[in-house]
Amino acid sequence: MTELTPRPPSRSVTSMTEYVLPTHANALGNVFGGQILAWMDICAAICAQRHCGTICVTAGIDDLAFDQPVKIGQVVRVTACVTAAFRSSIEIKVDVQGEDPASGHTWPCVSAFLTFVSLGPNGRPCAVPPLQVETEAERTLQAEASERRAHRLARKRPHQG
Amino acid sequence: MTELTPRPPSRSVTSMTEYVLPTHANALGNVFGGQILAWMDICAAICAQRHCGTICVTAGIDDLAFDQPVKIGQVVRVTACVTAAFRSSIEIKVDVQGEDPASGHTWPCVSAFLTFVSLGPNGRPCAVPPLQVETEAERTLQAEASERRAHRLARKRPHQG
Amino acid sequence: MTELTPRPPSRSVTSMTEYVLPTHANALGNVFGGQILAWMDICAAICAQRHCGTICVTAGIDDLAFDQPVKIGQVVRVTACVTAAFRSSIEIKVDVQGEDPASGHTWPCVSAFLTFVSLGPNGRPCAVPPLQVETEAERTLQAEASERRAHRLARKRPHQG
Amino acid sequence: MTELTPRPPSRSVTSMTEYVLPTHANALGNVFGGQILAWMDICAAICAQRHCGTICVTAGIDDLAFDQPVKIGQVVRVTACVTAAFRSSIEIKVDVQGEDPASGHTWPCVSAFLTFVSLGPNGRPCAVPPLQVETEAERTLQAEASERRAHRLARKRPHQG
Amino acid sequence: MTELTPRPPSRSVTSMTEYVLPTHANALGNVFGGQILAWMDICAAICAQRHCGTICVTAGIDDLAFDQPVKIGQVVRVTACVTAAFRSSIEIKVDVQGEDPASGHTWPCVSAFLTFVSLGPNGRPCAVPPLQVETEAERTLQAEASERRAHRLARKRPHQG
Amino acid sequence: MTELTPRPPSRSVTSMTEYVLPTHANALGNVFGGQILAWMDICAAICAQRHCGTICVTAGIDDLAFDQPVKIGQVVRVTACVTAAFRSSIEIKVDVQGEDPASGHTWPCVSAFLTFVSLGPNGRPCAVPPLQVETEAERTLQAEASERRAHRLARKRPHQG
Repeated sequence: MTELTPRPPSRSVTSMTEYVLPTHANALGNVFGGQILAWMDICAAICAQRHCGTICVTAGIDDLAFDQPVKIGQVVRVTACVTAAFRSSIEIKVDVQGEDPASGHTWPCVSAFLTFVSLGPNGRPCAVPPLQVETEAERTLQAEASERRAHRLARKRPHQG
Repeated sequence: MTELTPRPPSRSVTSMTEYVLPTHANALGNVFGGQILAWMDICAAICAQRHCGTICVTAGIDDLAFDQPVKIGQVVRVTACVTAAFRSSIEIKVDVQGEDPASGHTWPCVSAFLTFVSLGPNGRPCAVPPLQVETEAERTLQAEASERRAHRLARKRPHQG
Repeated sequence: MTELTPRPPSRSVTSMTEYVLPTHANALGNVFGGQILAWMDICAAICAQRHCGTICVTAGIDDLAFDQPVKIGQVVRVTACVTAAFRSSIEIKVDVQGEDPASGHTWPCVSAFLTFVSLGPNGRPCAVPPLQVETEAERTLQAEASERRAHRLARKRPHQG
Repeated sequence: MTELTPRPPSRSVTSMTEYVLPTHANALGNVFGGQILAWMDICAAICAQRHCGTICVTAGIDDLAFDQPVKIGQVVRVTACVTAAFRSSIEIKVDVQGEDPASGHTWPCVSAFLTFVSLGPNGRPCAVPPLQVETEAERTLQAEASERRAHRLARKRPHQG
Repeated sequence: MTELTPRPPSRSVTSMTEYVLPTHANALGNVFGGQILAWMDICAAICAQRHCGTICVTAGIDDLAFDQPVKIGQVVRVTACVTAAFRSSIEIKVDVQGEDPASGHTWPCVSAFLTFVSLGPNGRPCAVPPLQVETEAERTLQAEASERRAHRLARKRPHQG
Repeated sequence: MTELTPRPPSRSVTSMTEYVLPTHANALGNVFGGQILAWMDICAAICAQRHCGTICVTAGIDDLAFDQPVKIGQVVRVTACVTAAFRSSIEIKVDVQGEDPASGHTWPCVSAFLTFVSLGPNGRPCAVPPLQVETEAERTLQAEASERRAHRLARKRPHQG
């Protein structure tokens, strides 16, 4: 049977690799938490734009906790993927790992869910393309994302169309 | 009667003012969410160090939502204050406002609670000086902070001594 | 009795807090003088724009001398306030202090008077709102500023409308 | 049969994603060639360190030509992979693509071969782990790399152990 | 006899001086090769614009090899000069030296030939003013540049008008 | 006759060329005064280190006035030269010009006298090599510098050995 409806885009995944320089770190040689958050945001923003085909702006971040630090001379790996698409917003999961490029050893640094709003040419929220959900795992992921969104809305936060 | 116990420090407040340049903004001229998060983190880190007298590292951030954007040529005002001190960690509330320096108009941008761990010279968590709690308002603030901390621990996140 | 004339704006004060990173410092770990000057200028520019309600550009700086240095891991506090408003220019006093956030110790770093020209939408100098002068101290401050301005003009420097 | 000799590392691949900001671009809104070269170098350096397990410094770059430009608001994708390992040096191929995150369209920007020298703790060149060569394609790649290296040495350039 | 044809511009030379900060260097304290390439590109771009009177974009770089490193606290000196002007492109030679400002000692770091394309207001390649060639040395320089250009074109690279 | 006394170093001159990017400029496209001051300071610091053979830190700046602005896409040329050497301090004159690289047009931007203190390995002020004074013009320059220094000391400013 022929496909009549436009096929939603497959899941956009975006990955970044950053080398930790002295300018990124505090007096102990650890990357600032805020620098890692800035990298997470830019990685997620690219991921969101790849899915939506529009400029996407950060609407919010779920609570997050830092695990192990990353130091000067080590590498930060950031991976972002779409977990759910709503009316005019999108949820992105971002995972950050530390890596010692010499030994190859990696460790978890932090993970978080970020939401973005898709903006049209007029700067107003616009519709987000649906996310293809086919497998049982994808269905679970989407259900969990909807639950997180319900919690966010219950806390009465703006911009979560 | 003489004061026998050392007096805990009064509440440290830290404020920053940032002028938004093109390098901070996306194609719509809005500051990146990640840039604002980086400013919040550095402001809160200075606030935490002022209270603790030690190097403090970001342990986590509670969920947050961005309200109104700030654009190139406008000003970002960041204010951080200590809300509660625990054994080796501290909670900081950070408020961010946008400001149009020409008109004097200001608007809420985002608020969040950040937690920091105090590190001793050996890089291990160390004791945080207690926070002076005298008024009813301060008692309420502390009770709310303890409740948020209980929620964080219930989510089994690391580093919240 | 009702107020018939528009009330001039109260004195704009702007404060910035900067954490000294390795990228700001020379091989001895001291912040570059030029970095401190750049922070003074941006702080004063925001202060000037808050008073004038226009874009303000640096016209000049009176002579200044650096007192004690600020090192990596310490904090730079910049405070700017309007001292006098002239026809199309404004004088701003900027004070910079070093601070060790761990001990709370602070020390003088440098102070200077900067002058800014207010520019209208056409990029030409435009009128600056008058500064409210009520107390004896404010009158003295204004008289001193006028004297500094007379000295500047005597040195035949441009842009001091 | 058990494996008696240590297995050389598989081919290290490193990828970076960069969002083009105004600070990266000239007056036409195109990324500076030098900014792209800086991203290629850091991506290749991480790739080299992942293979060698040491600090690696850039020894040289083969001639390269820029194809199509990348503009503000678009994305630069950098991919580096090891093509050959010599005694104390390593050759890395770096490919750069432009991407419009909204349309998903990508295009070639530039490609080049970079060579790095592996440095030991004493800062002197040290041995590079061999590269596993199993397939016919890998053998061809290595032969071509050796030929490029012979050309480089014929031009009497330093640091190509 | 009066000069009837417009006189081509004399050879544009551009020099830059950079102080090496921690943010420019790797864990060994050596400037990143990519940072040096970025400085070379900007210096050559200014040199090209000075000759052409237009915006010039990097078309390519001939192979190059790094000689001796430059470290934090030392100085990088970059010198760019025009070696030949073609139809819509220009060849620039860039020399980089390291310098210890305390001892005055200098050493070669890297040299390369960069080619730029001159772009007109419409963003399309446009004619480059001819380069004045009068002495025997200048004639030799031009002949060598033409030979390098022939090699580049033989490798079928784009943008070398 | 043989030269019995060590010959003082000839006058160190340092020049820098900076390309103005959006990150350097305000909403009108003009470079911030503070950015120009930062470039002046780094150029003068290199110039001072070249004369003294030591780390030199900024002690002060004489009053200065900005002349014509420099805009995005234009070039800033900074030139620093030693005007006088005192016991442990040195005076540097810095001239800044704007340049439109396309037309070759240049214009004065700002000039100032900066003083630096020479620091020994222990971080304390140390002796500065004398400046060779041979011509009448050099003698006049030195006399003027001594007069400026007397004025500075009369204003009771620190660090001017």
